[in-house]
Formats: sequence, C-alpha cells, structure tokens
Amino acid sequence: MDDDLSKQIKNQGDIVRKLKSEKATKAEIDEEVAKLLALKAKLNDGEAASSKHFVLKNPKGTRDYGPDKMTIREKVFKVVIEAFKRHGAVNIDTPVFELKETLTGKYGEDSKLIYDLKDQGGEILALRYDLTVPFARYLAMNKITNIKRYHIAKVYRRDQPVMTKGRYREFYQCDIDIAGQYDVMVPDVECIRIVYEILSKLEVGKFVIKVNHRRLLDGMFKVCGVRADKFRTICSSVDKLDKATWEEVRKEMVEEKGLDEKTADRIGEYVKMSGGLQLVDTLKADLQMIGNKDCMKALAEMETLLKYCQLYKVQDWVSFDLSLARGLDYYTGVIYEAVLKGAEGKDEENNVGSVAGGGRYDELVGMFDTKGKNVPCVGVSIGIERLFTILEQQHEAADKKIRTTDTQVYIVSAHKDLVEERMKLATELWEAGISTEHSYKTNPKILRQYQTCEDEGIPLAVVIGSSELERGVVKLRDVADRSDIEVPRENMIEEIRQRLSLMKQTS
Amino acid sequence: MDDDLSKQIKNQGDIVRKLKSEKATKAEIDEEVAKLLALKAKLNDGEAASSKHFVLKNPKGTRDYGPDKMTIREKVFKVVIEAFKRHGAVNIDTPVFELKETLTGKYGEDSKLIYDLKDQGGEILALRYDLTVPFARYLAMNKITNIKRYHIAKVYRRDQPVMTKGRYREFYQCDIDIAGQYDVMVPDVECIRIVYEILSKLEVGKFVIKVNHRRLLDGMFKVCGVRADKFRTICSSVDKLDKATWEEVRKEMVEEKGLDEKTADRIGEYVKMSGGLQLVDTLKADLQMIGNKDCMKALAEMETLLKYCQLYKVQDWVSFDLSLARGLDYYTGVIYEAVLKGAEGKDEENNVGSVAGGGRYDELVGMFDTKGKNVPCVGVSIGIERLFTILEQQHEAADKKIRTTDTQVYIVSAHKDLVEERMKLATELWEAGISTEHSYKTNPKILRQYQTCEDEGIPLAVVIGSSELERGVVKLRDVADRSDIEVPRENMIEEIRQRLSLMKQTS
Repeated sequence: MDDDLSKQIKNQGDIVRKLKSEKATKAEIDEEVAKLLALKAKLNDGEAASSKHFVLKNPKGTRDYGPDKMTIREKVFKVVIEAFKRHGAVNIDTPVFELKETLTGKYGEDSKLIYDLKDQGGEILALRYDLTVPFARYLAMNKITNIKRYHIAKVYRRDQPVMTKGRYREFYQCDIDIAGQYDVMVPDVECIRIVYEILSKLEVGKFVIKVNHRRLLDGMFKVCGVRADKFRTICSSVDKLDKATWEEVRKEMVEEKGLDEKTADRIGEYVKMSGGLQLVDTLKADLQMIGNKDCMKALAEMETLLKYCQLYKVQDWVSFDLSLARGLDYYTGVIYEAVLKGAEGKDEENNVGSVAGGGRYDELVGMFDTKGKNVPCVGVSIGIERLFTILEQQHEAADKKIRTTDTQVYIVSAHKDLVEERMKLATELWEAGISTEHSYKTNPKILRQYQTCEDEGIPLAVVIGSSELERGVVKLRDVADRSDIEVPRENMIEEIRQRLSLMKQTS
Repeated sequence: MDDDLSKQIKNQGDIVRKLKSEKATKAEIDEEVAKLLALKAKLNDGEAASSKHFVLKNPKGTRDYGPDKMTIREKVFKVVIEAFKRHGAVNIDTPVFELKETLTGKYGEDSKLIYDLKDQGGEILALRYDLTVPFARYLAMNKITNIKRYHIAKVYRRDQPVMTKGRYREFYQCDIDIAGQYDVMVPDVECIRIVYEILSKLEVGKFVIKVNHRRLLDGMFKVCGVRADKFRTICSSVDKLDKATWEEVRKEMVEEKGLDEKTADRIGEYVKMSGGLQLVDTLKADLQMIGNKDCMKALAEMETLLKYCQLYKVQDWVSFDLSLARGLDYYTGVIYEAVLKGAEGKDEENNVGSVAGGGRYDELVGMFDTKGKNVPCVGVSIGIERLFTILEQQHEAADKKIRTTDTQVYIVSAHKDLVEERMKLATELWEAGISTEHSYKTNPKILRQYQTCEDEGIPLAVVIGSSELERGVVKLRDVADRSDIEVPRENMIEEIRQRLSLMKQTS
C-alpha cells in the first residue's frame, strides 16, 4: 500500500514540477500542490499508524471471542443467570476501573497484580481486580444494608497467563452475594446450593464443593502454636495445598516463614482431614481444639452449615476440608471452593482446578464506611473461563457444528435483477419478527444462495423468480430435505411461522 | 474503628509490660507479644486502606448501575440484540484494552481522549476508544474477509462528561458491522433498517436518520475551493453544525482554519440542503458538481441508497443531509447519524442529540494487514447510554415501580422453628425451576414475610405451619388479592405452575 502511495507522490511531484516549468497559472499549480500535500499527509498518517515493529496481536493474556466461542459463552451465561434469578437476585454493574485507593489494602500480597491506569492528569485509577471490593464500595457509598445481587463482568489481573487451563489476565467473574444481618449460615448455605445448581446444569462432570471456616483455621493455627501475626502468611501457604504437596508446603512454612517443625507437623495432621458431619464430631472431641473458643464456635457453625446442606440436598457434593484456606484477606467466616474432578479413576493431580470460590466477609464494607459500620456479606464467584474452556473442549471433541446465527429464512432469487423484490420480501419478514437474510450481491448465483442456507444451517428458503412474482406466490424450501412447496404470497408469513414452530417442537 | 484498635493496642502493651515486670515465662510473654504484633499489623493495614483524603466515589464520568437501572438496561439490550439477530448477525467480543499502537493514528484529533494504562513493565496498553478499530484488528488478525457481526461492550473516552445528557467516560456501544466485498449500498441500507427497527421498538419518540457520503463531502469541499490537505479539518468544523450555528462554524473556518470567506460561503450554501431523492436530482444538476467525478459518483450511490430505503420502508425516517460530516477519519463512503427529535413543536435546539452513528470504512482493515489488503466494511453504532437516560426519565415521569427480581414464590412460615421445613420446600421449588425465596432469618415474623411479598411484587406465597405440615398440605396465597387456598403438598408444584402461566397470559 505504501509503495503505491510513494509512487503516487512521485507522479504528483512530477505534475507540479511540469506545471511550474510550463509557467502555468497560479490557480492551476496551487490545485496540484494541494493534491501533493494531501498525499504526503496520507503517507505520514500511514507511517504513524504502522510503526516499524508493529505487531498484530492481542495484549498478553487476553483473547478475542469469535462467534463459536460467543455461542458457548452465551449458553453458559444463560445457565448462570437463570440460577441467580431463580434465587431472587437483582443485577448490578459498576465501572471497569475504580479509584486506586478503593482497591488499596484489600488483596494482601496479590496487590502487585493490579493493573494501574496511567496518570493523565486527574484521578489515579486502576482496573478492578475482582467484583467483591467494588460491591463493598457500592454498598458503603449507597448506605445499602441488605441486598442479594449478582454481577457478571470482566476483572483484570497481571498474573502469569496459562491459556490452556483457562487462566487469563482478562476474565469474567459471575458473582452472587448476599448482604444483610441474617441468621447463622442461612444465606451461606444458599451460595452452596447455587454453585451446585450451576455446575450440575452445565454438565461439566463430577465436582466437589469444599468448605471450611476462617475462624477455625485461625483457631487451628493458634492451637498448633503459630503466632497470631503469622496467621495470614501461614494461611497463604496452606492455600497452596491444592497445587503443591504437603512436603512442599511444609518446607515453605519452615524454611521461608520460620515456623518451627513441630508446629508445622501439627498443622500437617489437621490439613489432612476432610469429611462431613462426622468430622465436626471428631474435631469437637479434639483435646487441643476444645480449649479454644474460636474453634468451638466455628465448629458449631460448620455443624449448622452441614445440616442445612442436607436440607438443600447438596450434602453429597460438599466436603468439609481443613486444607481449604483461600488467599484473600477479607474472609471472616465460611469459605468455599468448588473443584472439578478429573475423569474417574484418575488421582487428585488430574483435577482441572477451582471453578468457583467465595466465603463470608463481614468486615469489608466497614473499610469503606466513614464510621466503620459493617454490613455482613457472604458470596460466591463462578470461575466462568475454566467452564468455557471445558465446554469448548467438549464441543471440539464431539465435533459438533455450532450454529452462531438465529437466521430462520434466507431469500433466494432464481435469476438476475431481483434485488429489489428480495428487499420487499425481507421487509415483510422482518416486520413479522422473522430472522431473515438475503445476499448482499445484486445478482447472486442461485447455487451459491442455496449453499449459504446449507452452510449456515438456515432451516427455510423463500425462493422467487419472475414466474412466482407474476402468480403472486413464493416457493418455500425446507433446506434439510430440499423439498419445495408453493405458497400464496399472502399466506407466506403464516406458513413460515407454522413450520418454524413445528421445527422447534421436534428439535 | 481505629480508636478502638488503638485502645486495644494500648491495653495489650500494658499486659506485655506487666508480664515482663512480673518475670513471667518466655512462652507466656511471647504469646502476648504475638497478639500485640497482630493488632499493630491490623492498624497498619487499616491506615494504608483509609488514607487521609479517602473519598468514597466512582471515578469521574462513570456510574454504578443499581437494580432499577439494570432492569431498564436489560430491556434495551434485549430489543437491540433481537434486532441484530433478526438480521442474521453473529456475536463477538474483544479485550477491553488493546496494544496502544493498535489505536494510534485512527482517531485524528480525538486521540487525546484515549485512556492509557500505566507502563508496569510489559506491553504498552490503552483502553479501547470504540469497537470499530478492535473489529478491524480482529478481521486483519484472523484473515476474515466477510462477516456480519455485532458487539456490545463498554468503550472509554477521557471526554468532559455531561451526565444529564447521558454522556459518560465509560459507556456502552452496540455495534453491528457488515464486512465483505458486496454490491453498492446493499449492506449499507440494511444498517439503516436496523437502526429504524431498534428506535421504533424502543418508543423513544420521533427520530430522523441523517445520511450523507464522505466522497460527496470531499467533492463539495473541492468545488467550493478548499485545498485537499484541509478537507479533514474543514470536515470536522462542519461536524459541529449539530451543536453550533452556521455563523459560529463559519467563524471557526475563516478565523481559525484560514479558509477564505467566499469558500466558506459556498460551503454554507450546500450545508443548508437536506431532503430525499429530489435533493439528489438538484445536486446532479448543480453546475459546480457536474464537473467533479467524486461528486457524481457519490450522488449516484446516494440515489441507489435512497431508492433502497423505499424498499425497506424507512424512507420517511431518512434525510439526505449535506451538513452531516462525522468526526472520525476512517469513513470512506456513506455516513449515518440518527437523531431524536424533541417534543413536537419545539425547534431544532431541543434535539436530544445523536443516538446512533456510523458509516462505510473500506480502508481501515488494510491499516492492520501486513500487505495492506482491505476488507470493505460498513456499520452502525447504537448510542445506548442516551437511550437508557431517556427511558429512565420516562419511567420516572410515569412513576412506575420497576420489578428487579424474577421471584415467583415466597415461602412464609406461620410460626417459629420452621426454617428447616422452609428449606425443604425451597429445594422442591428450585428443582422444579420455580424462582423462590424465603427469609434468611430462622424465625421471621409472619407479617414481615407477607410485607416482603408485597414490597417485592412476588405473586405467590406458600405458607406453612404445624397444622399444614401435619395434614400434608400447604396454603397458597395470591399476594395481589390476599386470597388463600389449601393444596396437597404433592400437587403444589403443578398448582403453582398453572397459576403462574395464567398470570403470564393475563399480564
């Protein structure tokens, strides 16, 4: 393209020089000079746009969603939103960026992963890291003390992307949170029920929803001999148990975090434990825990939660797991994490990883309130990208073609000079609410038009030629079996509607 | 909150000093020191989070969408998406940020409004300014030569926000674009039809879709005596005619942009003109234009467009308007802008402003292609924020209460100790796909529960007490008329479904 432009500039330069040498009128010369300047301006623009090292790519860790991906994404969102609405949630949205200080001090060690905006004179902004902190900011700002809301939006983390596992720098979160001063575990168990409904409906295979309690963890660390100021850092070591072995985690605790070996081994005994109500009984009889008020209170709450899980018929998918820690600082009560299990027979290492997580955070809203007034909250976030990735792989494995449009009718012209007739027909169909397309060529070939119907999976074709137009009819073709019938023009819409509704019933 | 914490730290310090003075064991002292350190860590965190000048607000020019706003937004999106799908479009999505160089050189003077991300070591990124440039990047990157796609997403501009007019720094665009080598004006007119369908369906009052042609503008500038290198800057002056008077625009052209007065006046004659096919005839007979090939070619195209508008039955909403310029550099053919008209009888100044805009851009994809290969494109963007604002105002004026949840059934307990029974019932209802809520209190008051049903507009209540439980029935209440009937528990789901479907039909 630029070569072309250079040539044009050279030619135009020759014209100007020629006119000057021929002593042409000023007006004539000016006109050609203007053209030359315009061409040069174009060249400069082009060069500015395509700098020498221009790379055509997406930012690292991000991806485009083409039509196939979007079709799967829409299906997943539909399942998620239906579940959220089935539980009476309202929908809210917040800006993609927040004042930087809104995010400061909420994410502990992960704060380094926040995307900052450039200071362009004005406020200091950063892209949201999750939907929970903006939600807490929203509650405090609007003095809302109870709400059940969902929020589906992209969040941003400057993490090391692992695309094959569905880990991106820009990714969707689907959050539902219940804020309000309520009774113990009643909203908390509903979050588990919602995760169960979504994962069951999506048919992504077996899963387990691990639950634990932040206060129980703290109590456990205490009775094992961890100093209070080390709770958080030891907690984030424990959090790695889903990816690392106990030996690795123990090493980190002892060598990097200076825990004494005996303490680490005591923790090691606890984090092996998982189960259901019987584990609560075991721990309630644990001689170390008995003496710790935090432990006993948290265990009583876990007992209530697990009983409620039975009433909500999710007990078979829930595991009380003392190794579950969750990295974020703001949790104060129950914590959850849903994990997909690999194909049956495979061991733990083949787990696809976490697809939902959350917990109770009773003190986050207070961090935004001028008087420190808290609003108790509990919520869960569906890690939708991994679910997309799994469903995409399922589709690829099944080699199913995905329909990416809703087009119901394609108008085919049997010969030339029918674009205007096609337009009239399309208008009729659109006004009847029927999804319709026709060729953007004025004189498309008939076979090419039929081919489009088949390629795109469009169920019906309306075919017109001069004979049909003269007799006031259209030919209606069932694309699947290529059968045609003639229909009077005035009955066309009705006939199409009947056929579409029949197809819908039988599909 | 901090006062509390300071007090705790002081007390804990006292405890440690006391132990030391009492020569307590090292273990005892260590334990209390650990507590002190934990409290101090908490204080530091708190201080980091709530810096002295902490302001609880959204970033300038952005807003939260609460449940009421989201309900309206979802309705508008539904209308827009249905229209896009009715015309056979596929859906795509791209990341919220792009490599900065992808956006460079595409927006002319408006480039200064781009939000840059901070350089945190890695790629230089910027938030997208529109959806058109990312679309062109997507086509070039994936070597796509024809597609009809829609894209609904937020874009970012560091402009002066005017919230009352629906002008924000973060706002949604709803774009549909048709890419491919097609025949003159066939895809172009469909964009107009789509805008017409959306604006009609939304019932936002009278509107006009202005159309013009970038080549006709260039030809017009040429015949008026504007130098080629000034086309763009004069074009952006003309673009201001929707907000400024001709006198103001003329002044800018002459005084700021150095146009001679005669040229400006000639332009002034043309930009007054608007109409339909008869304006094409007038201009085709215009002695100045006749001599300009660009003008004649563009006029022939406009004639085709306006004829097609008749076939698509939108001619009454379309105005060929020579004052329409559109600021963006990349247009190469037809340009559109839909404008809402104020209440009848009011003059032009009361126009609410542009609610859709677009045009043909045949050379943008080539800017991304390594060989400069172009893909002709035409598209239109629906300015959804202004439509939200108008519909919100309509709702407020009508004083209609908006339902923000889908909840169909609320389970009411007649007395204490029924939370577990409510949970069992809720599980049955959720499993039947019925949106259901019940109180998060274990022992809510009965009147409070009925009040919730009425406040939230929930149509049905299922009421249980010990009598109902003993007899295996539930009481089903129609919230609107407060009538109750008893239904055997095993018929409950069926009875509820029938009532809901009846309510749906009659609403």
